Amino acid sequence: MSVERIEADYLIETAYDLSQAADVMAGEQSSGTFTPVPGETPELKARSAAVVAHLQDLGPVAAPALPGAGKADQEHRQARVTLSWPLANLGPSLPNLMATVAGNLFELKQFSGLRLLDIRLPQAFADAYQGPAFGIAGTRQLAGVDGRPLIGTIIKPSVGFTAAETANLTRLLCHANIDFIKDDELQADGPGCPFDERAQAVMAVINDHAHQTGKKVMYAFNITGEIDQMRRRHDLVEKLGGTCVMVSLNAVGLPGLVEVRRNSGLPIHAHRNGWGVQSRHPLLGFSYVAWQKFWRLAGADHMHVNGLQNKFCEEDQSVIESARTCLTPMFENKPCIAMPVFSSGQSALQVSDTYRALGSVDLIYAAGGGIMAHPGGPSEGVKSLQQAWQAAIAGEDLRAYAKTRPALKTALDAYRS
Amino acid sequence: MSVERIEADYLIETAYDLSQAADVMAGEQSSGTFTPVPGETPELKARSAAVVAHLQDLGPVAAPALPGAGKADQEHRQARVTLSWPLANLGPSLPNLMATVAGNLFELKQFSGLRLLDIRLPQAFADAYQGPAFGIAGTRQLAGVDGRPLIGTIIKPSVGFTAAETANLTRLLCHANIDFIKDDELQADGPGCPFDERAQAVMAVINDHAHQTGKKVMYAFNITGEIDQMRRRHDLVEKLGGTCVMVSLNAVGLPGLVEVRRNSGLPIHAHRNGWGVQSRHPLLGFSYVAWQKFWRLAGADHMHVNGLQNKFCEEDQSVIESARTCLTPMFENKPCIAMPVFSSGQSALQVSDTYRALGSVDLIYAAGGGIMAHPGGPSEGVKSLQQAWQAAIAGEDLRAYAKTRPALKTALDAYRS
Repeated sequence: MSVERIEADYLIETAYDLSQAADVMAGEQSSGTFTPVPGETPELKARSAAVVAHLQDLGPVAAPALPGAGKADQEHRQARVTLSWPLANLGPSLPNLMATVAGNLFELKQFSGLRLLDIRLPQAFADAYQGPAFGIAGTRQLAGVDGRPLIGTIIKPSVGFTAAETANLTRLLCHANIDFIKDDELQADGPGCPFDERAQAVMAVINDHAHQTGKKVMYAFNITGEIDQMRRRHDLVEKLGGTCVMVSLNAVGLPGLVEVRRNSGLPIHAHRNGWGVQSRHPLLGFSYVAWQKFWRLAGADHMHVNGLQNKFCEEDQSVIESARTCLTPMFENKPCIAMPVFSSGQSALQVSDTYRALGSVDLIYAAGGGIMAHPGGPSEGVKSLQQAWQAAIAGEDLRAYAKTRPALKTALDAYRS
Repeated sequence: MSVERIEADYLIETAYDLSQAADVMAGEQSSGTFTPVPGETPELKARSAAVVAHLQDLGPVAAPALPGAGKADQEHRQARVTLSWPLANLGPSLPNLMATVAGNLFELKQFSGLRLLDIRLPQAFADAYQGPAFGIAGTRQLAGVDGRPLIGTIIKPSVGFTAAETANLTRLLCHANIDFIKDDELQADGPGCPFDERAQAVMAVINDHAHQTGKKVMYAFNITGEIDQMRRRHDLVEKLGGTCVMVSLNAVGLPGLVEVRRNSGLPIHAHRNGWGVQSRHPLLGFSYVAWQKFWRLAGADHMHVNGLQNKFCEEDQSVIESARTCLTPMFENKPCIAMPVFSSGQSALQVSDTYRALGSVDLIYAAGGGIMAHPGGPSEGVKSLQQAWQAAIAGEDLRAYAKTRPALKTALDAYRS
């Protein structure tokens, strides 16, 4: 029976009796409402009500985390709550799962804090969705990179280059021996750099480079747009010999990603921009652990996780937990492993810490300034990252390893904080 | 030139120099990044950089609103910032607009608070998107209701009824002279109440009632699901003679709604569940004023706005502001007016205040307990709401008006808080 139920864990904060507050959550998100109604029979509740499967008091807090809750002047406590729903309420549907586990409950008067921490789904969800088509093995095969992370970069300036300028930078990066390049999330199909023109110009460079060197650089073209636009753009990339497409998850939504996945012959690079809205307040929204499961099951091959010592607010520990969760199987027969993408202010400096904390090389390590601003130029920038990863994997001391490797040595000096 | 630019207003909070902080926002969301890069030429910046069009210091605050920002121990100030982007950066694309005005900036280290307050779009957006197909006039025509709000209700229990039980309740509500019924957002196509079965059973009742009385009750069927599922479900509703479909906006995403709109012959009832994540903290996420513009332009005919004295955290003033903004034209030649939907703990009690504050009857007034729990039964519940609106529109005192109207009088006694 438990296999046919959906479970969700929450961190809550309330001035109400914990058990009553948890019951309100369960009621609001299933067969109950704020007042009893005639049809809410014991039989109906038995088959449809969400139940509070677990409730752990975490103790009182000094002040309510969010404004607007009831009983503001009384003591607030935090608790961990697990709710459980029968699959029959919604069936294996990701959009309706979103409305069920993360719908109307964040605004309930009872709560001065409510955050979704994790979800567990029955096998029916694994059967209903495709998950990533390429994941780690497929990405490595297309990129021709084994035993180490893909070294990647983002086209910068984020937006403003014409198609020809983007292709010129791509040529420079190809010559620098990069593995992976991505469009910025701000660059999609603006009149200043139309998608088709950019894809053609960039792929001409990449194909030419592949012809000469045997190495086809993976370029994640940002196809974010309407359903038909995304399909057409994907098909163009595939036809041109490209090996990756990118979408902004919060902009395209779950059905948007599912539709891209259904028609995709290429890895899907999933950008999380807008994630701050859903995660920035620790007592509101989603943990990345819960959130990324929706998108992996829907088909994301690469998931952004930020990077150590990044330019945003996120702590290193949270970044590593995010990356680790992408590498943790979702179902026994359908692991849906997505390759974590490290980015934001990355250089050779963070490599050892990243490897030590994650214990894996199955990731994309993306650096902008960490490559382009290397005093020796982009080639040396890429080389410095490769050398840093060699040192980390071999368990060598970075500074010692750098002594005989000028690219790495220059990077360590140039980027030291 | 200004007509070719996109503008967005933000409320920010920062311990950094206000002007510098605003520049970081503008840079991050256009051609800049955290470190200067070679291609960022003056020419490129001139054509692509977002500019700070307006900056108003709102003064210091006692403590940072959100954790994680830099300079936590220094004085934080709030400010109102307007950024402006050239349309050429992204073109008239709603998903890419989302990534541009509400993408990576909420997590920037500079900000202990950042909320999108409003957006203004050039005409190209009006040309690129369809907006609502029915709006107020189309909805009124299909529902056969003029000069007053549509009186509506939600199927409760939210989930748990079989298709036949849903149809039975629909019959009761039809006999009670209801104008509008909606599925709960938790009820879509679960095995416990499959969509097709429910649509067929419910529409048999509604068509039968229409045949006998000439009144076709509008039923918003929750078609939320994948793209192909939503299209198929919409087509079934249309084929069965139904007059409305519903989607959960945050579950289907912008391209999902656009796709529904493109293929829809029925008004789209837009549910905002999950909105709490994006709005609950006053210094994070979106104001409804900004957020609803995306969805109206994408095609939403009815937009949920909560209700006065609701069961959630939202203040009455915010509810009215939300409703008013739905009734405010977006473009001169494409107003995209959506009908606001009031719901959550509504009864005859809030009618006068709602009308007084909004000054319009162009809305759906949805009550659950306010109809079903009326001591005289659902017929009297509906009648009490109609009478309350008659009194409000006529400018009569509610209690005085109720003296000769037992349904209203009973409601005022039963629901008084």
